Amino acid sequence: ADIEAGKAKAAVCAACHGVDGRAQIPHYPHLAGQNAAYLLKQMSAFKEGSRQEPLMAPFMAMLTEADMENLAAYYASLK
Amino acid sequence: ADIEAGKAKAAVCAACHGVDGRAQIPHYPHLAGQNAAYLLKQMSAFKEGSRQEPLMAPFMAMLTEADMENLAAYYASLK
Repeated sequence: ADIEAGKAKAAVCAACHGVDGRAQIPHYPHLAGQNAAYLLKQMSAFKEGSRQEPLMAPFMAMLTEADMENLAAYYASLK
Repeated sequence: ADIEAGKAKAAVCAACHGVDGRAQIPHYPHLAGQNAAYLLKQMSAFKEGSRQEPLMAPFMAMLTEADMENLAAYYASLK
């Protein structure tokens, strides 16, 4: 996975999950330092619809598997 | 919410999410320092079934709303 490519893709995510992966909105999760495998699993679940989250699904639809792997690696790398 | 009461209830959670809220299993999420409102929302979703997670549902079935609020406060309080 390519952390720098993930960082570039994360610009959109920052609106809700924070520029540093720390969500300012209380009912949204922090992503910084989260397990990459967990992040990837949840992004895939949002994309497939097995985890229903109307806000997340459209963003996941834009991402390839490689994009999701890069995003997971990027957020896992943050403290 | 009562952080100490949440800590007492968290003994079961520690098996997968770590004694300090840091999951050792890569596809499970860290909970330490997560937003309390997010944690509560997800526990409720597991309990109601709107977030389908066969591993989580039986544990949530044992918890009252107050238990979930206390657990959310406890994990949010960890670093």
